[in-house]
Amino acid sequence: MLAVILQQNPPPGETSYKHSVSVENIPIPKIEAGQVLVKLQAAAYNHRDEFIRNGLYPGIQFGSTLGSDGVGIVVDGDDELTDQRVIICPGVGWEKDPRGPEGKYRILGLLPLPGTFAEYIVVPRKDVFPAPAHLSIAEAAALPLAGLTAWRATFTKANVQSGDYVLITGIGGGVALTALQFAVSVGANVYVTSSDDNKIKRAVELGAKGGVNYKNDAWPNHLRSLLGSNLLHSIIDGAGGPLHPKYPALMRLGGIISVYGMTVAPQVTFTMSAVLKNVDLKGSTMGSRAEFEQMVRFVNEHRIRPIVSGVWKGLTKENVEAAYEVMRNGKQFGKLVLEFDAAQKL
Amino acid sequence: MLAVILQQNPPPGETSYKHSVSVENIPIPKIEAGQVLVKLQAAAYNHRDEFIRNGLYPGIQFGSTLGSDGVGIVVDGDDELTDQRVIICPGVGWEKDPRGPEGKYRILGLLPLPGTFAEYIVVPRKDVFPAPAHLSIAEAAALPLAGLTAWRATFTKANVQSGDYVLITGIGGGVALTALQFAVSVGANVYVTSSDDNKIKRAVELGAKGGVNYKNDAWPNHLRSLLGSNLLHSIIDGAGGPLHPKYPALMRLGGIISVYGMTVAPQVTFTMSAVLKNVDLKGSTMGSRAEFEQMVRFVNEHRIRPIVSGVWKGLTKENVEAAYEVMRNGKQFGKLVLEFDAAQKL
Repeated sequence: MLAVILQQNPPPGETSYKHSVSVENIPIPKIEAGQVLVKLQAAAYNHRDEFIRNGLYPGIQFGSTLGSDGVGIVVDGDDELTDQRVIICPGVGWEKDPRGPEGKYRILGLLPLPGTFAEYIVVPRKDVFPAPAHLSIAEAAALPLAGLTAWRATFTKANVQSGDYVLITGIGGGVALTALQFAVSVGANVYVTSSDDNKIKRAVELGAKGGVNYKNDAWPNHLRSLLGSNLLHSIIDGAGGPLHPKYPALMRLGGIISVYGMTVAPQVTFTMSAVLKNVDLKGSTMGSRAEFEQMVRFVNEHRIRPIVSGVWKGLTKENVEAAYEVMRNGKQFGKLVLEFDAAQKL
Repeated sequence: MLAVILQQNPPPGETSYKHSVSVENIPIPKIEAGQVLVKLQAAAYNHRDEFIRNGLYPGIQFGSTLGSDGVGIVVDGDDELTDQRVIICPGVGWEKDPRGPEGKYRILGLLPLPGTFAEYIVVPRKDVFPAPAHLSIAEAAALPLAGLTAWRATFTKANVQSGDYVLITGIGGGVALTALQFAVSVGANVYVTSSDDNKIKRAVELGAKGGVNYKNDAWPNHLRSLLGSNLLHSIIDGAGGPLHPKYPALMRLGGIISVYGMTVAPQVTFTMSAVLKNVDLKGSTMGSRAEFEQMVRFVNEHRIRPIVSGVWKGLTKENVEAAYEVMRNGKQFGKLVLEFDAAQKL
């Protein structure tokens, strides 16, 4: 089968990333007891895949098959599931403890775990869930890790409820967009930030009440005028960086800042103003299998369709790199998906 | 009656604080419906009283009677309470919402509210509670604001439970010591930090399992060796400042850092390491009347006796300033109390 493998040294002239990838032909993995073999139909990219190529992720293992998000058809290991389309819970070792993983937590896409950028994957039976029927293959591929991360950040950590005023920063990324859809679905009043006015406009089409461009230093005042007399119950942030000291003044007492990533800078400042307002700053990473189940149920109930920014058809080096290139430039609005059209590739 | 009044300009030569205080003879206040008149027997100092004199507190009003903590005898306004010893809930405008005050929140000791550094005070009937019978007058005076702040930081925010491993920073202050007593009372394993080995020794006498001197750069390793294979469930911090980036590595997944003040520096850094461990950093300020009631019940049940570091007898300028001097030097281990011995003063 074809698989996208992480390689230590980029070929001469390839300098976009610290590490390179190659598309290799490797054996289809064998199943053991309690496992299923899934013939993957599509996989989606996450920032994690980029961090790994940049050497900025813990536990990097060369020779890993990359990719954490996948959708496919069960072809062996469980008679009931055979021929069913499933999505895969991307994390292993975290059953249900809301505080964090009970065991050693790992995400698909780094050894010793397999990855989804491949034609087949073997995973535990308990890690596959029926793909929501209202989703296309690309939408289903886009759901797992962004949906799980957004679920935990939005509900477990930020406790977003109907009527809340919520700010979601950096709209356009997969987690931010999914958090927007989740929060809108429960009846929250959602505002967004972006450096791109067009992304704000598209977020409003998805149900946001409005948004502000954080490249304009007056963004806090712009947001205040959108909020009127309301203050924010929560902020869902994947950027980190220097905007944090501005947040407490926009928040109500006991507000929650849920941070699921720090793409802008790897730390934030928490001020005495936040303490005086009883603000909580909560770190949020991925989520448990129990949260994954809750998330999939919610997506089914609310007919949520993940936003797909681009689809490349065919597991080729060219397509893999083209999607990486879009992610590196940060212009996407939604998830980047590789569809594996067998007819094209084998 | 005598009262300690905040004055704008220090007398010539008095430079320890930005603002000065004077002991004045002012009229005994009158009660209105729903209020009681309390003849105060003692009052305790808080860092807040020092911040006010340094001009570092919001809403400073010259002419205010200072002091947030008081114990005394009800002398008018409620027949059932008359002649009973009571302590006073120091905050107004916060009934029970765990997120923060429902209304405008104010603490005794700044206009328009009265203060406890006076021989009498008028407060709402609902703000007085029977002083725990096992406490001396000085211990009862030491309880209210430190007890309330420690309660919220320890239980409402950090959710400390039996068997938890808990670090309390800057042991010696009133809130830190009360948090130590609270956490030990529920069966937590408590460790402390201080810059003073003698304070660590005294904390161990109060039930701490051990402590480390944070002036030694190797303090994280010292704490690790005390903890053995255990990691911290929570950290209760009133210092803020540069030690925060060291905390996540000492904590278990989903750990909580509860910050009730920032005496060292008015901000802290929250890192990606904290996000990856699902750590929550929670601001905590004072507490509601409901939390005050819970706290007083707990103090009665567990026979907790606030630690009193020093008592000055008599409401004189000399005594007031002597206690301020001790607080400024930070050498106290517990609360500083002024007892109002009427025979001495009137």
